[in-house]
Amino acid sequence: MAIAHAQPGQAVNVGPLGAELPSQKTVALFKTGQLEVIRLVLPAGKSLPPHKVVGDITIHCIEGRLDVQAADGSHEIAAGQLLYLRGGAMHGVVSLEDASALVTIVLSA
Amino acid sequence: MAIAHAQPGQAVNVGPLGAELPSQKTVALFKTGQLEVIRLVLPAGKSLPPHKVVGDITIHCIEGRLDVQAADGSHEIAAGQLLYLRGGAMHGVVSLEDASALVTIVLSA
Repeated sequence: MAIAHAQPGQAVNVGPLGAELPSQKTVALFKTGQLEVIRLVLPAGKSLPPHKVVGDITIHCIEGRLDVQAADGSHEIAAGQLLYLRGGAMHGVVSLEDASALVTIVLSA
Repeated sequence: MAIAHAQPGQAVNVGPLGAELPSQKTVALFKTGQLEVIRLVLPAGKSLPPHKVVGDITIHCIEGRLDVQAADGSHEIAAGQLLYLRGGAMHGVVSLEDASALVTIVLSA
């Protein structure tokens, strides 16, 4: 990762990447013993295969559109929308258009 | 709370409130055993007095500007910026201009 993890109290820019999105990669913004926050960058048509994590997660779409595929069906989120999933829930993510999202994961479940 | 808590997988609008901000109140978007996400609405000049929570938190400024006052000093965040604080850290929040923010709190520390 080229970006150093943020420290407590440090302001981190998490706004839309815009024209820079295609050249950006997914990065972990910080990780504590309890919490990890990732900026997911997913160009149109790319996907994350189904997976799960132990703790609850939120996915906050910052730009573009994402389809979050969970056991109970498909959930589309666009820029300015957030959803959460319970820990242990299998989910995949498909990018419907160039997208970035903040993914917040509870680690201390 | 007039707004029902979101269910897993349900898209929730968390974008800027804009002209509606002055008429909106802070609401809990959802709460699980592990995680709570609140939309904080803080008109200019309003503040949250110093307090602390057990778990780690993130504060993501959606619109306006906030001054987060922690033990190590004052941290300003504007729309599109996020910071985190460790569980147990005393902090107050002052709104520098009409602001809304997503506050994510780990409950299972």
